[in-house]
Amino acid sequence: MGQELAAGPEVVALAERTAAFIREVVVPIEEANGGVVPSDAVYRELQQAAKAAGVFAPHVSKEYGGHGLDMRGRAVVFEEAGYSLFGPLALNIAAPDEGNMHMLELIATEEQKQRYLAPLAAGDIRSCFAMTEPAPGAGSDPDALRTRATRVDGGWRIDGEKWFITGADGAAFAIVMARTAGEPGDRGGATMFLVDAGTPGMTIGRHIPTLDESLYGGHLEVSFDTCVVPDSAVLGEVDQGYRYAQVRLGPARMTHCMRWLGIARRAQDIAVARTAERRLFGSRLADLGMAQQMLADNEIDIAATRGLILQACWELDQGGHAGQAVSIAKVFSAEAIYRVVDRSLQLCGALGVSGDILLGRFLREVRPFRIYDGSSETHRWSIAKRVVGRHVKNQAQS
Amino acid sequence: MGQELAAGPEVVALAERTAAFIREVVVPIEEANGGVVPSDAVYRELQQAAKAAGVFAPHVSKEYGGHGLDMRGRAVVFEEAGYSLFGPLALNIAAPDEGNMHMLELIATEEQKQRYLAPLAAGDIRSCFAMTEPAPGAGSDPDALRTRATRVDGGWRIDGEKWFITGADGAAFAIVMARTAGEPGDRGGATMFLVDAGTPGMTIGRHIPTLDESLYGGHLEVSFDTCVVPDSAVLGEVDQGYRYAQVRLGPARMTHCMRWLGIARRAQDIAVARTAERRLFGSRLADLGMAQQMLADNEIDIAATRGLILQACWELDQGGHAGQAVSIAKVFSAEAIYRVVDRSLQLCGALGVSGDILLGRFLREVRPFRIYDGSSETHRWSIAKRVVGRHVKNQAQS
Amino acid sequence: MGQELAAGPEVVALAERTAAFIREVVVPIEEANGGVVPSDAVYRELQQAAKAAGVFAPHVSKEYGGHGLDMRGRAVVFEEAGYSLFGPLALNIAAPDEGNMHMLELIATEEQKQRYLAPLAAGDIRSCFAMTEPAPGAGSDPDALRTRATRVDGGWRIDGEKWFITGADGAAFAIVMARTAGEPGDRGGATMFLVDAGTPGMTIGRHIPTLDESLYGGHLEVSFDTCVVPDSAVLGEVDQGYRYAQVRLGPARMTHCMRWLGIARRAQDIAVARTAERRLFGSRLADLGMAQQMLADNEIDIAATRGLILQACWELDQGGHAGQAVSIAKVFSAEAIYRVVDRSLQLCGALGVSGDILLGRFLREVRPFRIYDGSSETHRWSIAKRVVGRHVKNQAQS
Amino acid sequence: MGQELAAGPEVVALAERTAAFIREVVVPIEEANGGVVPSDAVYRELQQAAKAAGVFAPHVSKEYGGHGLDMRGRAVVFEEAGYSLFGPLALNIAAPDEGNMHMLELIATEEQKQRYLAPLAAGDIRSCFAMTEPAPGAGSDPDALRTRATRVDGGWRIDGEKWFITGADGAAFAIVMARTAGEPGDRGGATMFLVDAGTPGMTIGRHIPTLDESLYGGHLEVSFDTCVVPDSAVLGEVDQGYRYAQVRLGPARMTHCMRWLGIARRAQDIAVARTAERRLFGSRLADLGMAQQMLADNEIDIAATRGLILQACWELDQGGHAGQAVSIAKVFSAEAIYRVVDRSLQLCGALGVSGDILLGRFLREVRPFRIYDGSSETHRWSIAKRVVGRHVKNQAQS
Repeated sequence: MGQELAAGPEVVALAERTAAFIREVVVPIEEANGGVVPSDAVYRELQQAAKAAGVFAPHVSKEYGGHGLDMRGRAVVFEEAGYSLFGPLALNIAAPDEGNMHMLELIATEEQKQRYLAPLAAGDIRSCFAMTEPAPGAGSDPDALRTRATRVDGGWRIDGEKWFITGADGAAFAIVMARTAGEPGDRGGATMFLVDAGTPGMTIGRHIPTLDESLYGGHLEVSFDTCVVPDSAVLGEVDQGYRYAQVRLGPARMTHCMRWLGIARRAQDIAVARTAERRLFGSRLADLGMAQQMLADNEIDIAATRGLILQACWELDQGGHAGQAVSIAKVFSAEAIYRVVDRSLQLCGALGVSGDILLGRFLREVRPFRIYDGSSETHRWSIAKRVVGRHVKNQAQS
Repeated sequence: MGQELAAGPEVVALAERTAAFIREVVVPIEEANGGVVPSDAVYRELQQAAKAAGVFAPHVSKEYGGHGLDMRGRAVVFEEAGYSLFGPLALNIAAPDEGNMHMLELIATEEQKQRYLAPLAAGDIRSCFAMTEPAPGAGSDPDALRTRATRVDGGWRIDGEKWFITGADGAAFAIVMARTAGEPGDRGGATMFLVDAGTPGMTIGRHIPTLDESLYGGHLEVSFDTCVVPDSAVLGEVDQGYRYAQVRLGPARMTHCMRWLGIARRAQDIAVARTAERRLFGSRLADLGMAQQMLADNEIDIAATRGLILQACWELDQGGHAGQAVSIAKVFSAEAIYRVVDRSLQLCGALGVSGDILLGRFLREVRPFRIYDGSSETHRWSIAKRVVGRHVKNQAQS
Repeated sequence: MGQELAAGPEVVALAERTAAFIREVVVPIEEANGGVVPSDAVYRELQQAAKAAGVFAPHVSKEYGGHGLDMRGRAVVFEEAGYSLFGPLALNIAAPDEGNMHMLELIATEEQKQRYLAPLAAGDIRSCFAMTEPAPGAGSDPDALRTRATRVDGGWRIDGEKWFITGADGAAFAIVMARTAGEPGDRGGATMFLVDAGTPGMTIGRHIPTLDESLYGGHLEVSFDTCVVPDSAVLGEVDQGYRYAQVRLGPARMTHCMRWLGIARRAQDIAVARTAERRLFGSRLADLGMAQQMLADNEIDIAATRGLILQACWELDQGGHAGQAVSIAKVFSAEAIYRVVDRSLQLCGALGVSGDILLGRFLREVRPFRIYDGSSETHRWSIAKRVVGRHVKNQAQS
Repeated sequence: MGQELAAGPEVVALAERTAAFIREVVVPIEEANGGVVPSDAVYRELQQAAKAAGVFAPHVSKEYGGHGLDMRGRAVVFEEAGYSLFGPLALNIAAPDEGNMHMLELIATEEQKQRYLAPLAAGDIRSCFAMTEPAPGAGSDPDALRTRATRVDGGWRIDGEKWFITGADGAAFAIVMARTAGEPGDRGGATMFLVDAGTPGMTIGRHIPTLDESLYGGHLEVSFDTCVVPDSAVLGEVDQGYRYAQVRLGPARMTHCMRWLGIARRAQDIAVARTAERRLFGSRLADLGMAQQMLADNEIDIAATRGLILQACWELDQGGHAGQAVSIAKVFSAEAIYRVVDRSLQLCGALGVSGDILLGRFLREVRPFRIYDGSSETHRWSIAKRVVGRHVKNQAQS
């Protein structure tokens, strides 16, 4: 499928090993669990199996036990891992840990790396990323950030409310975004903090019930009330939080796309198998034109998603922020992946909406992706602003 | 909203009374239950309240305690009832009971009416309609019917497997479609039987887990193994089952559309309220163009759905089968209603996918409607065949 | 097709007579002319034939020689007339004359009616409606009106630029919208004037070449430079132009929809005939699922368009402005009609894009309708504003 | 825009040179001609200018005066050339000559190359490719081929009817596909012949009027009646015509996509410029959300098209037929490019449908691409068959 366009033979081999591991080991466990977050024991078992198969933590540098994949390499491997809802858990590349590892490698101090990155990369602990706030705080609009960190003797005091903090239940630490300058609505002025679980003043609140249910550690409300952390808890530099968020967000958006693309392919495989065996009105379902149209549109959506991910990853690998390419790939992927799952479910009819196969589960899992990590509308707004801004700038220069 | 185009002042008044009852009484109970099937006690309470409000069983003839609405009248009233997932339960117009009452009034003997229709119309019992079979049986293609009823002394012996039998758990009786002539694949040759709960040989099997969860009594597997019923159990005439199914299916498809149209309006109301209060990027969300586009498309989809339901109901009220109009309305409604809920959820962002409001629940409930009661593809196939067939016939005549 | 839902037997009979007239008389002439605006002689011939067939000017009151159809009656008859590009010309119900007659009947003085409406209704003259201005003037935003009428002794002096003035070439008079109060950007302050062809200072400029080419008299630039008209040229009251524009625009938008719905049906009929006779891959094209899907979607779009037109016309017939219903019907119709023509063309393959049949012509004619008479985006904006405004008002009251 | 993902620095430089040449030299001439096929003199002038700019015939091998671009290199350069309707003419990469050169380089004898390829590559002559037949002949279904070549002494006699033969008017020779074995409906059995203009029995018939009008030499009917050609006219081997057609069709489909992608970008640039300057309702049009959505969707469609073209070209460059990748790219490109032009036109409002800018022209040019070179439906059918066939094969093996 053109993996060689994105990656060299070593990475392609890793992708193939991953694909085999997912089909043989992970999918049976996922299906037995109905795709819902497994027990801690199963989670551990999956990670051990991934380590044994030599496919664990492929994105982490070799220093920390991984394969040091660049973004294009991740595109090839994560898509295979995403073929099962449990694949990313097994490989230790699930959100939000995967994005946190990526960022820690880039901006943490050596000491912070030893304390946070090493056990995270090994799968010994989990983490969360506490940026999103309930309205009217930071959601689609990061400038609306209201959680505040104020200088205290020897450190910082954090106060504010977060929600939809994925993986917060059981996380050993949180990376917390808080305003250290300016007022809500101002651009910039945010700082990232590493806050250990159990720090007084940080409360892990309720699990927010959501349409999706496969992310380990749930989506939670987290509140900060006079939560004091030392200076060493600052990740990167003070007031530079948004710059780091960009470092994290672009790649993290792409890895979301890669993983969900795997689920889209899984859905299509289920639909293909079903239409090849099911007979209706005297024909094989796979020979009826309306079914063929859905199958073909699935192939097209999958291929186009892969092409856009590759373009964005190539740009990221060249060292750019790739803001436009990432937004384009995110919008298209989120919508295309949803369409693929939706069509696959439709092709399976009543069976498709039943819990006897996982398509209804997949539908629930991918629907929020059109909202999470920047809604389709927010990204479209950014895309249009960039293209018009570029034109205006060119006009001014000519 | 043009209700007067469809119905006279008395019916419009009933619709308004229904709307008030739903908003004041039903919605609070639905929200407290998260939209999932309520307990039997709550169900009884809702029906008592509907009786007290004078809005109970509006479709049933006055003889059986209802308001005797024609199809256009139902369009106006059911849409209001459908504004809450629990509305149809409260008014005793939920599937499959509502369709069963409709059919029993038209084809049952007087004795059968007393025994089955009267308590059903009163809300004292529930029922189910056992037609659908697992592949390769009768699903999209009714001719594939495999459940067989064979003549025995004084009655019939029924054998076969059914699934997705809505409301079977707790139903006092089932209307069972079984083949009395021909072989699977043959057109016609089916008969309907009234089978009491507890009849030996009829087994109510497992609840099939489904994406939707609001239909009372679930979707079940029901099997028949040497299930013997007397001659008096035959509903209508032997071998005429498909003809009666047509009597039931057209109106039943329309009432589904009416009820779900109510949910679409509810979703839109939630989205409108949210966008009117939520501020983003310095604007009210309701003033951002992409949000306005979604709100407008919702209005358009709702109005077009209503227009198509009216056309089909008008034809049904003239006494026709209205096959083409029903198929057109069913396909459009199922897809438009889904789009409305999907857009409304998108407009509410993270809140929309959370369980804190009911949009995720609505999405799960309406998605299967593109499959249930004839999938969009099956209806499109019928629509095209009819239009081409009409052309060929006209050509032959000219 | 449910015409009886919209109109009584007399109107249905007129519609059937119209349908026969179009098929037997008009379509052959249209096809011989490739659908492009015919010569004046052909135009006269068509109108004579329509008079002979008793289907001429059906919308005009009986006093002026018509059938006095209400909006629902027009919906039924105009759709039949629109089945050919030349049908509206033949029946004297083409834009902009049809809308002008509608408005003159409602607001002109008796003297103005004798002078302008009577010959217009008889088909002896043509007219135009000069409202639209090139950017930054009045287009989507009527408040941007820049053409100005200033008081002079015994009358008014008009100055300004108009464009896309349909039918201006050969029109005996123009209804001109000019600002008599306020500044561009202000709401209101416009007045309508009846300006005879040949009035000094009014220049009929160039024909604007457009994608569409079937509207008689073209789309022209018209300029006013010290164009003086007497007081008797004022149509209605001074400064009330926008109010009258509303009187004209709602119904005129609906009649556009009706006429183009006729073309959509024609396109579908061509596609049905083609798919019924064309064989591909060993099947009749009409039996291939993807073709069936397009044929079915055409039926659905046609039916939904008809349903929305009916709702808006019903509201207009009740005496309301029906702003929301008209906007909804306009957006949906313009887009649905385009889809129908586009799919029909696709179904005919290479033949469809050739000039050997008229589908390419139809595509060119209907594409601008998504822009003319309020673009889809402008109407969506209005629809959303109305629905949110209604919510805010309800909130304030409760 | 990620050109470096597809091509090395030398090719990127050629693309940049091409882009500058198109903007500075070609676009002004195209606009002055309204995008309609220019006179022969203008055509010659354009080719001279392209030669002077060093961008002529980039796809031809260096031996024949070109730059020897592989498919990925063409993707980068042809997109730039396609930015103007006249760009491909100027560079000598327009259909059908470009595809014919591609095929001649691969399968012609040395003598044939000297006689046909050399002057074609130099721009001294034009050619055509005569494969398509009117129904019920070879169109979407190549097996339906009816034109027949029968053995005669020293050569072949060709009889049959072709239509939609692009560029036939003025072509120095035609590559004709004729059946040399089997009957219409049989797979295979076709042979390609090189037939010089003026050969007795070959009649260049009427120009078929079409929605598109920019292809040089039009779309014509060509008939063969006892047209005798020598053995040396056989291109490649007898009965292998379909195999060669595959060699031609995959790349030719991709180069169509590349060129039209250029037009899509042009349309978007026009729309961006317009929305950046046009003010509406007190805002810049480019700041209104619905406009932003269209601009963003254009960017997404353009990027996704580019990504799919790259994938298919990469596969072709590896030496495969890339049937699936080509079909996927063809369907998506044809539909996405049309959407981009359609949205751009919509963004420009009335100006967009006027002939004052070229968007209406572009719309007419790109619409047929959803039909030419395999309709969207035919390709979708192939895509689905391949994916289901692959599954069935895998099942059989496991």
